[in-house]
Amino acid sequence: MTALERKYTLLATDNAPGQEGRQKTVDLAAVMRGDPLPGRPVDFSHGDVDAFTPTPGALEAFVAGVHAGAHQAYTEYRGKQSLRALLAPRLAAFTGAPVAADDGLILTPGSQGALFLAVAACAGAGDKVAIVQPDYFANRKLVQFLDAQVLPVRLNYLAVSEHAGLDLTQLEDAFKAGARLFVFSNPNNPTGVVYSPSEISRIASLAKQYGATVIVDQLYSRLLYTGQTYTHLRADANAPDNLITVMGPSKTESLSGYRLGVAFGSPHLIDRMEKLQAIVSLRAPGYCQAVFQTWFAEPAGWLAERITLHQRIRDALLAELRAVLGMQVRTPQAGSYLFVQLPAMAVAPQTFVALLRQQAAVTVTPGAEFGPHTCDSFRLNFSQDHAGAVAAVQRICAMVARYRA
Amino acid sequence: MTALERKYTLLATDNAPGQEGRQKTVDLAAVMRGDPLPGRPVDFSHGDVDAFTPTPGALEAFVAGVHAGAHQAYTEYRGKQSLRALLAPRLAAFTGAPVAADDGLILTPGSQGALFLAVAACAGAGDKVAIVQPDYFANRKLVQFLDAQVLPVRLNYLAVSEHAGLDLTQLEDAFKAGARLFVFSNPNNPTGVVYSPSEISRIASLAKQYGATVIVDQLYSRLLYTGQTYTHLRADANAPDNLITVMGPSKTESLSGYRLGVAFGSPHLIDRMEKLQAIVSLRAPGYCQAVFQTWFAEPAGWLAERITLHQRIRDALLAELRAVLGMQVRTPQAGSYLFVQLPAMAVAPQTFVALLRQQAAVTVTPGAEFGPHTCDSFRLNFSQDHAGAVAAVQRICAMVARYRA
Repeated sequence: MTALERKYTLLATDNAPGQEGRQKTVDLAAVMRGDPLPGRPVDFSHGDVDAFTPTPGALEAFVAGVHAGAHQAYTEYRGKQSLRALLAPRLAAFTGAPVAADDGLILTPGSQGALFLAVAACAGAGDKVAIVQPDYFANRKLVQFLDAQVLPVRLNYLAVSEHAGLDLTQLEDAFKAGARLFVFSNPNNPTGVVYSPSEISRIASLAKQYGATVIVDQLYSRLLYTGQTYTHLRADANAPDNLITVMGPSKTESLSGYRLGVAFGSPHLIDRMEKLQAIVSLRAPGYCQAVFQTWFAEPAGWLAERITLHQRIRDALLAELRAVLGMQVRTPQAGSYLFVQLPAMAVAPQTFVALLRQQAAVTVTPGAEFGPHTCDSFRLNFSQDHAGAVAAVQRICAMVARYRA
Repeated sequence: MTALERKYTLLATDNAPGQEGRQKTVDLAAVMRGDPLPGRPVDFSHGDVDAFTPTPGALEAFVAGVHAGAHQAYTEYRGKQSLRALLAPRLAAFTGAPVAADDGLILTPGSQGALFLAVAACAGAGDKVAIVQPDYFANRKLVQFLDAQVLPVRLNYLAVSEHAGLDLTQLEDAFKAGARLFVFSNPNNPTGVVYSPSEISRIASLAKQYGATVIVDQLYSRLLYTGQTYTHLRADANAPDNLITVMGPSKTESLSGYRLGVAFGSPHLIDRMEKLQAIVSLRAPGYCQAVFQTWFAEPAGWLAERITLHQRIRDALLAELRAVLGMQVRTPQAGSYLFVQLPAMAVAPQTFVALLRQQAAVTVTPGAEFGPHTCDSFRLNFSQDHAGAVAAVQRICAMVARYRA
């Protein structure tokens, strides 16, 4: 196997959200118990933009962008200047620290694009990168694509406490071992936990102490549930000098179909990201960029209502899941992910996930995607039709009853 | 300077098309001759989609895609299956060889996205990659980003002949020296020359002989002028086993604002490209993908008219340029680029390009972007308003008269 073949083996996407349709159908007859569970299919691998529709005005902004013509089609690689000027103060107000429209902000094809550019701007072959486990599956893959090395840091998210549960000693050990980049999502994907003020403060001071760069993926930070506090690392008094914050309107705002994201922070890193974007995708889609006008400028009450509706689904699903003996799940503080740990099962977790699709018409994302310690878990994106999601989770619970050890 | 700093220095975009606005204005007072030349500003760094507007029906297809909802927003990473099924036979008919919709085709964010994924799927650190000089500037940068090594192959495009002018001996030498990947654009960017049947046949047989992979960027292959023949490498009897063809509707079809491209060819390479796309940008923008329905399905006569109009501009500009003593330019056989070699000048070429912007309101792309042997040239994208382009080229000629040695 060549080095390239090895690398691409590590980047497997067979179990990634939305890719399930490409899997060969496995014959599960030998392990299958009972009849199919009837019900409307639900794909929990990503949010349903038919249930939670895109921000009002998004399509109109796009169409106006097309009619604006050349100036909207061909923007600077880092995105249209007037849009950066519009977004910078909004992002500054949201995160509590200044954002430089001219040299500290880049528009990207989705927050995935921002994350790729940010990690590639900060790490090269042989570099050590601290990565949380569990965390968004692309973080690990990005490091591997760049021939860099993952130094894992555990998130003990099931240890109920006022913290997300990051092992700060392991983080410091990673820095001591030479990591000069730390990448994490907050709220954490897949668990929905939010880092506490003291955790963020400690991350900031450790990064500063060791001269490390931090990339924080805040994709879900707007969908914050009642009573929760969100701490922006970039607003911390000790925020590291080299810091990139990633956000985007793909989730809370259901604008994923437009592929829009942003990264903001240290100008010399944003510069590198623009240079890389020039050879990766040129720019965020020109006409789509116009949709950014609607971001952080939604109609009054729109965000609050979206949060309320998601919170209701969250609580309904938690009630179903917690009625099952041995099933463990922490209450998400933000976002629309539930990360569920299974009780002891008679079949392998991966087989159970396949059975869920074949027998119960329910698609979930296997926990193994998010790290090596969560293979007995699965992730649900509950940004779905309320009744459909509840019914599907009831089918999951029935399937657990069938297949538990 | 760290390895990352060095790498990003090589990826500089200051003179790239559309980035001119980010340059610090240079004080040229010391070398400036004469008064400003009045006229409507023309930006030849890219095509003007206000002069040549997007394909009819593109916006309508996009809007229908938004209304289609979730299934259009979240597609497989390689693009929506039904669209791949629609495009595969059209691309097969155009290129003269089969395209496998399921495992041999990927939709990408622009042809730039396709090119990035293709090169990264085929080359890693230390690999040798044969690159044409002059050719599209990103080719070199992609190889450098991947810590691979460029082995240059000259294109003697000014040697008037029935061939594009590729130095086939140099290409074989590159293969002998260990290159296992050859990347080139056909029609060539920036010169607009089209590789002859015998050149394509020789490239195919050399690649086959040395077991090399070929990536051919055919972005402009639809805009083919009267009397020209285009040879598709993938239809050659000796086509190499590992071959990726890149195309997209950004140029001829003026759909750049939607960021759409495709790559098709060897399934195991398309597989790798999809895995990489998953961590780079997830997918081509979901709603934009719907616009692919209009591709190769334009109204009758639309493409022929577009070619005719471009050919008229080409010939008008060539007449102006060839009236200047010592200015050299080959007649482009396809696409909308003119690559012009300056006569001996009293100022450096880079200074002349800056003077063109400041005194004549004309933006061109410096030849140094395309390779080390064409620093005394510049590129024009003449997909512009006809009268405006002619007037701007007249200003260029007047400026050459002012600043020639």
